[in-house]
Amino acid sequence: MSAQPPQIRVAVSTVIFALLPAPDGEIRVHLPLVRRTRDPYAGAWALPGGWVCAQESLSDAGRRTLAETTGLRPSYLEQLYTFGHPERSPGGRVVSVVYSALVRNHEAAGTGAGPVPVDNVSWCPVDDAVGLAFDHDEIVRYAIWRLRSKVQHAHVAQHFLGERFSLAQLREVHEAVLQKPLDPANFRRQVEGSGAVVPTGERLTGGRHRPPQLYRAVLTPESAGPFGRAGPPS
Amino acid sequence: MSAQPPQIRVAVSTVIFALLPAPDGEIRVHLPLVRRTRDPYAGAWALPGGWVCAQESLSDAGRRTLAETTGLRPSYLEQLYTFGHPERSPGGRVVSVVYSALVRNHEAAGTGAGPVPVDNVSWCPVDDAVGLAFDHDEIVRYAIWRLRSKVQHAHVAQHFLGERFSLAQLREVHEAVLQKPLDPANFRRQVEGSGAVVPTGERLTGGRHRPPQLYRAVLTPESAGPFGRAGPPS
Repeated sequence: MSAQPPQIRVAVSTVIFALLPAPDGEIRVHLPLVRRTRDPYAGAWALPGGWVCAQESLSDAGRRTLAETTGLRPSYLEQLYTFGHPERSPGGRVVSVVYSALVRNHEAAGTGAGPVPVDNVSWCPVDDAVGLAFDHDEIVRYAIWRLRSKVQHAHVAQHFLGERFSLAQLREVHEAVLQKPLDPANFRRQVEGSGAVVPTGERLTGGRHRPPQLYRAVLTPESAGPFGRAGPPS
Repeated sequence: MSAQPPQIRVAVSTVIFALLPAPDGEIRVHLPLVRRTRDPYAGAWALPGGWVCAQESLSDAGRRTLAETTGLRPSYLEQLYTFGHPERSPGGRVVSVVYSALVRNHEAAGTGAGPVPVDNVSWCPVDDAVGLAFDHDEIVRYAIWRLRSKVQHAHVAQHFLGERFSLAQLREVHEAVLQKPLDPANFRRQVEGSGAVVPTGERLTGGRHRPPQLYRAVLTPESAGPFGRAGPPS
């Protein structure tokens, strides 16, 4: 590594989701927002967060700033993603490590989880959380997209293969990654039942009497990367 | 946010996986390592990486440092996790944003992907990558764990529910998160076929003639968090 790197400040932000009734009575995903009292973006709504202190871990900073601003103390926080675009914060570069958690609705009670804000904190239906400070709109969009895609299956192994592959080739990749043999008949049943691959109508070439069928992955926006595209576009 | 935060330097590291033949002939997951030429940890093997420059994005810093040290230029890099323990780097706090990619073995060729290191770069079987500089052992263990767990299904919805729930309750959570109705019979078939839940033998209490069965999630270490435990332990 070369000489002194440029000054970049490190912060944390938290995105907390709960299923709560919206004003129209529908159950929707909500998150808590805090109204900023100082510049930049004084008066705008933002994600709970703050600076990372010298001797605390990143997750402790997430827990501390969340508890200080909203009173929420979820049993765990999961690191979601780190946002660090050079221009995301006016007045100097800030990298924000974003933590997230899902909470039950009783955990949200008493922390402003109703139509009236409590102490600058208000729970907002996620699709209404727009016009926030900094790049928090983008952070929220990403967090809800992650949640929605995670309820479905992750597609990984086809990133070690080309566009077309036999089921045996697919199984061998799973076996190499998991370091354990997989029963071919069960594997076939699971994969064909998952809808993750479709036959191409072509067969592997070669001298065999009945060469195996070739398949391709069914790619969705959520599965476009090896770790399930676990990151925002670009 | 309060006054000036403490000085924390920001770096990137990259973990690149390829399926390559090991010396014993078995196909295993490998990754490229670089032998450090300066302190701290001069002479030790480490992940490719470096400081983030003032005007570049985090992913560009990952791409640039990877290309500069190994010649590798994968078509995308995915942000894996940010490591920021206060004591991970001697001589002052460094937060490292780790990027990862899977590459085909032909992309690894010519960049030291054989038994002899090329220009301080050597591809190492992932389970042999120990004794590395900084906390890079921990980063590698986490990356391979993520890869191995991602080939299986992510379990999400039960984090909005209690320990026991009916299939209808589970379906309603999926519908609220995905914002679309799901056919109950298909949903039941998918969930029962996935092995993600098991019946508890109990039924929902109530006055109905045949109250619905209660199920619980089959939790594995990989599924212990709402986003599939996508983070290292603590």
